[in-house]
Amino acid sequence: MKLLFIGDIVGSPGRNMVEEYLPKIKKKYQPHATIMNGENAAAGKGITEKIYKQLLEWGAQAITMGNHTWDKKEIFHFIDDATYMVRPANLPPNTPGNDIAYIKTNNHEIAVINLLGRTFMQPVDDPFRKADELIERAKKRTNIIFVDFHAEATSEKQALGWYLDGRVTAIAGTHTHVQTADDRILPNGTSYITDTGMTGPYDGILGTDRESVIKKFLTGLPVRFEVPKDGRTQLSAILVDINEKNGQAKKIERLQINEDHPFFS
Amino acid sequence: MKLLFIGDIVGSPGRNMVEEYLPKIKKKYQPHATIMNGENAAAGKGITEKIYKQLLEWGAQAITMGNHTWDKKEIFHFIDDATYMVRPANLPPNTPGNDIAYIKTNNHEIAVINLLGRTFMQPVDDPFRKADELIERAKKRTNIIFVDFHAEATSEKQALGWYLDGRVTAIAGTHTHVQTADDRILPNGTSYITDTGMTGPYDGILGTDRESVIKKFLTGLPVRFEVPKDGRTQLSAILVDINEKNGQAKKIERLQINEDHPFFS
Amino acid sequence: MKLLFIGDIVGSPGRNMVEEYLPKIKKKYQPHATIMNGENAAAGKGITEKIYKQLLEWGAQAITMGNHTWDKKEIFHFIDDATYMVRPANLPPNTPGNDIAYIKTNNHEIAVINLLGRTFMQPVDDPFRKADELIERAKKRTNIIFVDFHAEATSEKQALGWYLDGRVTAIAGTHTHVQTADDRILPNGTSYITDTGMTGPYDGILGTDRESVIKKFLTGLPVRFEVPKDGRTQLSAILVDINEKNGQAKKIERLQINEDHPFFS
Amino acid sequence: MKLLFIGDIVGSPGRNMVEEYLPKIKKKYQPHATIMNGENAAAGKGITEKIYKQLLEWGAQAITMGNHTWDKKEIFHFIDDATYMVRPANLPPNTPGNDIAYIKTNNHEIAVINLLGRTFMQPVDDPFRKADELIERAKKRTNIIFVDFHAEATSEKQALGWYLDGRVTAIAGTHTHVQTADDRILPNGTSYITDTGMTGPYDGILGTDRESVIKKFLTGLPVRFEVPKDGRTQLSAILVDINEKNGQAKKIERLQINEDHPFFS
Ligand SMILES: [Fe+2]
Ligand SMILES: [Fe+2]
Ligand SMILES: [Fe+2]
Ligand SMILES: [Fe+2]
Ligand SMILES: [Fe+2]
Ligand SMILES: [Fe+2]
Ligand SMILES: [Fe+2]
Ligand SMILES: [Fe+2]
Repeated sequence: MKLLFIGDIVGSPGRNMVEEYLPKIKKKYQPHATIMNGENAAAGKGITEKIYKQLLEWGAQAITMGNHTWDKKEIFHFIDDATYMVRPANLPPNTPGNDIAYIKTNNHEIAVINLLGRTFMQPVDDPFRKADELIERAKKRTNIIFVDFHAEATSEKQALGWYLDGRVTAIAGTHTHVQTADDRILPNGTSYITDTGMTGPYDGILGTDRESVIKKFLTGLPVRFEVPKDGRTQLSAILVDINEKNGQAKKIERLQINEDHPFFS
Repeated sequence: MKLLFIGDIVGSPGRNMVEEYLPKIKKKYQPHATIMNGENAAAGKGITEKIYKQLLEWGAQAITMGNHTWDKKEIFHFIDDATYMVRPANLPPNTPGNDIAYIKTNNHEIAVINLLGRTFMQPVDDPFRKADELIERAKKRTNIIFVDFHAEATSEKQALGWYLDGRVTAIAGTHTHVQTADDRILPNGTSYITDTGMTGPYDGILGTDRESVIKKFLTGLPVRFEVPKDGRTQLSAILVDINEKNGQAKKIERLQINEDHPFFS
Repeated sequence: MKLLFIGDIVGSPGRNMVEEYLPKIKKKYQPHATIMNGENAAAGKGITEKIYKQLLEWGAQAITMGNHTWDKKEIFHFIDDATYMVRPANLPPNTPGNDIAYIKTNNHEIAVINLLGRTFMQPVDDPFRKADELIERAKKRTNIIFVDFHAEATSEKQALGWYLDGRVTAIAGTHTHVQTADDRILPNGTSYITDTGMTGPYDGILGTDRESVIKKFLTGLPVRFEVPKDGRTQLSAILVDINEKNGQAKKIERLQINEDHPFFS
Repeated sequence: MKLLFIGDIVGSPGRNMVEEYLPKIKKKYQPHATIMNGENAAAGKGITEKIYKQLLEWGAQAITMGNHTWDKKEIFHFIDDATYMVRPANLPPNTPGNDIAYIKTNNHEIAVINLLGRTFMQPVDDPFRKADELIERAKKRTNIIFVDFHAEATSEKQALGWYLDGRVTAIAGTHTHVQTADDRILPNGTSYITDTGMTGPYDGILGTDRESVIKKFLTGLPVRFEVPKDGRTQLSAILVDINEKNGQAKKIERLQINEDHPFFS
């Protein structure tokens, strides 16, 4: 079974890339399940109900989130009914939304988990202990578990990767918006990548207009960060080949679509 | 002209990889200049004079450093005479060591610069303004300028990359110890990569024994971090093809040597 | 000569306290100069031209700022003409506004300086080196120098205090919004206090509505922070007695006005 | 009933102050219970068994800790038997040591709790939820509850203060080593102070040799931090007057002993 995971979709340039390339990717790679990180899907900050539904319609079976989950106020109006959205699990009890989403595919179920890192980020519950708890719960339904670890520090991401090796099918990092080249299958059968990379502007800074970000670094003065509407775009994703018998990953492949890495069907 | 840059060399496993593979890399790729980041070369923390000289002997023409520059006390005894070591330039005035090193190769000179990021790191001088100053100085001698930007945040690294595009030959990130897959030539001719990745243990966490790091994340208790002597190892580097006429980069290539990416001569 | 310094004025509750009590304080203590920190004077975030002028009219001779300097956009329209406003000096060159303000009083001139800390704060230029530079400049006009050090960490504040001891008349901390009880004259004649405290709501959290702040800590969800219009209020300040012959402080006194510490004329 | 709480005791200068002044304080104020923060009691870093016992012998009934709890390795050998030591409660399950200590005095029992903040500190469990849990547990034995909140940010400290108002007898901050002047009784009967201040060197920086700390800020180079053996010293504490019928605080008083605030018996 093949699983496709698309990294942080940023604004309309990111959504356009999904709309344009997902059909081609599906045709070429034939994934049985598609998961997307949608924390930046609405103009770089959060997600709206319309966009959530649009992403599902285009082919996502689950949408993971991150530190930007709550940026758009309307999230509070639809998250309780958003069966296929999974927000970071290591938030306080009673936080709205799913801490696990289950998607059905190919006669199997995949548990989808989203966790936040703590290093260089806002204080949240321990992602390591929370992972233990969620995995125990998920294992009652399925042995195919996908974890989107939304975190900043490479040390914390590698640590959770090794900690979960053999207990989940795949752990894929998000949040830094830069794809890393360390995709691998860990010794006990878990596929790992520190960051999946982003989907959206190719010539911005993490998807934001680069002039604004540079101005911020140079002057420290307040700057309006926007996702540029025009310009070149990119899509970043991973493909994981899964042994559905034991829930182990057999292979991980990185995918980058941009002008320097054109897509060949 | 080709330039080879090897990312953070961690401890003896990292040094052993350099010793073993540099001759093979040189044979295959024929680089005209070799630069290495040595901030973790001595047991993961700093560098000694012996190791500095060893790296030069094995083929480095310049050694860049980072936040671990001062970890080994003996650095203060030899850094003033270490012509080919370049420490972060955006430290206070009167900091010992070079803020630019010049290396001669192929009838050309390469200015080598090392800068520290500030986001999620210790307070230092502004790397953007310092880069302006250093580039102006270096341009008086050469138009081939290599920048090792030792920084944590992907935003700061991309921002400096775009800020320097067209003014330096290459900017390569270090410090996160994970190679990124975003190597590219920016529109004005500067080669860019967010992080070059590390050279040392392949199954540790950033090169450190993974059990200790995981224990630290799980318990918060004091833990002794060590570079494992045994186990699989890796080498991470980039190769930049330079137009020595105008100092622009023509091509950047990532290099990874590990059991999942064996070296073919 | 006596100098009065009022700590971070937060919103209308803070401004109202100044309006009500400054005349009484002046009558009782007879300060020759009055300085106020105005970084939160406009609804907790920045300052407007109207408020800046109002504070001067009520009796401020200089207004210091902090990390909130730029929160109100109109600051950029009037800061260049705001002779008696001094913004943090350790911002990049070409930042609008004064890095020193000089106020005349009692036949003497007082140089007023505002610096930002770096520990647990945004990256800025080194406040220690910047202080050296500003003091050298100010000394050409006067030996009475007042420093508002707007910083978070007690270590950084004490360090700058000791570093400047004997070179400035007074260094008073701001930013934490809580008055410290460590006011003292350092051995070489500089008056020191880690934080002057805030002027505004008495039952909020740093002047902000406490229910919102607690909700933020409990849930991590987005919360609108507002300065409560109603409720008990406080004023925090220091009074420094200065030997105008040598620019040394003779005495420092803390001032707190709130329901637990009523003002006696 | 009166409770005395002495803030962070730093090294031998701090211990000497306790030895010298505790008898005098006891004679003058007649506290029924004495609690001390001992996280820096051993040369500024952690505590030894000998020092723990010495502090009890001198009159402490409970010792609270903080982020430096584990600095001395021998802590792991005696913490399980240290009935009157209470380490931060919001550490992972299975952390050695007490999360509540109960002390008997005056026919009443006092529950002593120690919590770590998270803002600008290492990631730990949520201190707000942990406080709820501990208070519920403690209330089964006593309605007199003392909380040492070891935290950096004034916002987090005030937030926990207001959150616990009416549910604990007293919450006293530690960790910044600077006594704040905001001691008060909150509306529902809890005594509050943002920071109790430290006990040890009077002319250092947070108790550490000031030349080293200043050198660190100026140069960024490695520096050995030591508690100066000589020089003037201070003691910082609070006294809380408790209504043992309902567990509410009636009065809080700050205590500072140093050359600028000599002790009068
Ligand atoms: Fe994102
Ligand atoms: Fe994110
Ligand atoms: Fe490194
Ligand atoms: Fe580093
Ligand atoms: Fe403020
Ligand atoms: Fe501030
Ligand atoms: Fe302490
Ligand atoms: Fe502490």
